[in-house]
Amino acid sequence: MSITFAAGFTAGAVACGVKSDVPERLDVAVVASDRPCTVAALYTTNRVVAAPLVVTRRHLAGARPRGIVVNSGNANACTGEQGERDAEAMATAAANAIGARPEELIVASTGVIGVPLPAERIARGLMGLRLSREGASDAARAIMTTDTRPKTSSREVALSGGTVRIGGMAKGAGMIHPNLATMLAFVTTDAAIEESLLRGYTSEAAETSFNAVSVDGDTSTNDMLVVLANGASGTRVSGPDGTEFLHALTEVCVELAVAIVADGEGATKLVQVTVSGARSRDDARSAARTIVASSLVKAAIHGADPNWGRILAAAGRSGAEVNDRLASVRIAGHCAFERGRPMPLDAAAVRHALEQRFVEIELELGLGADGATAWGCDLSAEYVRINAEYTT
Amino acid sequence: MSITFAAGFTAGAVACGVKSDVPERLDVAVVASDRPCTVAALYTTNRVVAAPLVVTRRHLAGARPRGIVVNSGNANACTGEQGERDAEAMATAAANAIGARPEELIVASTGVIGVPLPAERIARGLMGLRLSREGASDAARAIMTTDTRPKTSSREVALSGGTVRIGGMAKGAGMIHPNLATMLAFVTTDAAIEESLLRGYTSEAAETSFNAVSVDGDTSTNDMLVVLANGASGTRVSGPDGTEFLHALTEVCVELAVAIVADGEGATKLVQVTVSGARSRDDARSAARTIVASSLVKAAIHGADPNWGRILAAAGRSGAEVNDRLASVRIAGHCAFERGRPMPLDAAAVRHALEQRFVEIELELGLGADGATAWGCDLSAEYVRINAEYTT
Repeated sequence: MSITFAAGFTAGAVACGVKSDVPERLDVAVVASDRPCTVAALYTTNRVVAAPLVVTRRHLAGARPRGIVVNSGNANACTGEQGERDAEAMATAAANAIGARPEELIVASTGVIGVPLPAERIARGLMGLRLSREGASDAARAIMTTDTRPKTSSREVALSGGTVRIGGMAKGAGMIHPNLATMLAFVTTDAAIEESLLRGYTSEAAETSFNAVSVDGDTSTNDMLVVLANGASGTRVSGPDGTEFLHALTEVCVELAVAIVADGEGATKLVQVTVSGARSRDDARSAARTIVASSLVKAAIHGADPNWGRILAAAGRSGAEVNDRLASVRIAGHCAFERGRPMPLDAAAVRHALEQRFVEIELELGLGADGATAWGCDLSAEYVRINAEYTT
Repeated sequence: MSITFAAGFTAGAVACGVKSDVPERLDVAVVASDRPCTVAALYTTNRVVAAPLVVTRRHLAGARPRGIVVNSGNANACTGEQGERDAEAMATAAANAIGARPEELIVASTGVIGVPLPAERIARGLMGLRLSREGASDAARAIMTTDTRPKTSSREVALSGGTVRIGGMAKGAGMIHPNLATMLAFVTTDAAIEESLLRGYTSEAAETSFNAVSVDGDTSTNDMLVVLANGASGTRVSGPDGTEFLHALTEVCVELAVAIVADGEGATKLVQVTVSGARSRDDARSAARTIVASSLVKAAIHGADPNWGRILAAAGRSGAEVNDRLASVRIAGHCAFERGRPMPLDAAAVRHALEQRFVEIELELGLGADGATAWGCDLSAEYVRINAEYTT
């Protein structure tokens, strides 16, 4: 039940015909809490910010949220002042549907840039909204764009004061890159938690999950990660419980983030890059993220080619300290390069390992004790086809 | 005659069987000057630096260069101490062939990473080297890897003291990205010029040429731009002549850089992005280079899709100041977005314009008076095919 796994949350979705050519498709999702929530929100780092983010920021500055409304099929970005009016209208319609005030709504959009949002069609569609705990799966489907499957995750955590639940849903699938580039992710919990603490945990969880994945290096104008905590469990997160809660929140975020890259546009493989032996954690992260985002590395993996030279070259341009004479590279469990020396590879065995759906790359830098992991996907001709034909 | 267009330079190439499966292919090029040169050299920013660059730096620290030796088919990168010995051996063989000392040679390599350089085969091949002014075209062909055609350029400049000539050759074709990512470019001139001045001009010329092009965002371990000035024209560059010389040097570099992206791996189109109205020149450069390097923009252009939203989104994540309500976008001469408003497009006409070999994108930011241009190519399924199959 993902987004409604935590107590006090319901969800639902309607088909509003945001894209008029697929009027029967579920394209607007709503999540509601039975009481006001504490909230942590992270937004795109893109300077071009979509209208729903502007509106959400304004709302969160003045009210505690009661719900989320999200449409797919239209990003409501680069739509000027009309775009903000449309995002407000969408919030108002959702607020009416769940019995809240408009400023208690978080608004998100994903889809094509620069096309006016059909706010009236959305308002009309929302009149038929039904919320339930079971509505979570419809909601997870309604936020999809080129995603081929819904992405959800949930965890239950036993804290000293009782049990709390965390659930989430997310959508990809192109324009995914570190720093919340291009994804929408919503997480709910029934824990009671101070807003400042929730914000800190959310930033930390995002750093090792959504900020550690890349599909294509492009950052969208609409990215948003929102975590809502409504306290419905009656259990408060504080003191030593914090670590447990952060751990579970991170697991949910990693599961959603990895699901996004595994379903990247045209992706046939999930790639996990682990860097160890770095001089610092920042170095490890830079190296891991640069490798996972390299077009040449991604194309090599697509072709089941154990091209460790491209892996080292990507690490070398990441800004991290790299000395190729101290570095070692393992590809899908096979040692390809050992402290500066190319190693003989069993070509058939490596090729077979690289033809699997999950490919692991390990780079040991031999310079220190810090490490990091990043996830991405291969680069296929299908990615090009999808993105050459998206708007028209 | 490109690399031998300037007086006092000769060139030649031999087939050494660097890649043993194509023994008849010209794969080692040599350029020689009849006298020692002043030199400016720019190297890859990658932390993983190939052996020939290490050797070249050492040579240039102690001697004025008399020649250049370059092989294709093998990058001599990640090859440890043996790699440096092999690069030295290559320099020695070329020095013997042109009657110079080894430390007077600049050494460059391009090709596969991590495979020992067959230095003996190269030395044997170089025994058959013949140098001539006509050898320039063989030399330009010998440095190609996945390039489909040689890349050359030349200019004659009238200065107050007489005429000087500038000529160059370069190779691409994958791993091309700003900051001398992945290319080899060699430029010769018969001007007499102070080394400090030559260095300044070379940096400036590189900034608007080689640093303004991108094929795939990957930076190689072997990039090098070398400019040699031998003074054979007897004409000295100084004072007001400097601007003329810089202008011609920049033209040669831009012509080579644009030829590289036009021949990018799998490229079917040359894309020119011009940003104007930026708050600063750095902003203009960042925006232009980010747009030209965006996988989503490149895929859209490949599909002849006037997706101005991706163009604005790329500018928005470039770090440059961008306000989408003040920005305007023209695609192949068609106004798609005007000061914050999407404009109606004649779909058939735009599609036809985008199906041409040369595509121009113009972004006016409406914030200031600075501008910059960058060049790139589209992203095709063929790029993926080439890079999925390169080593094996």
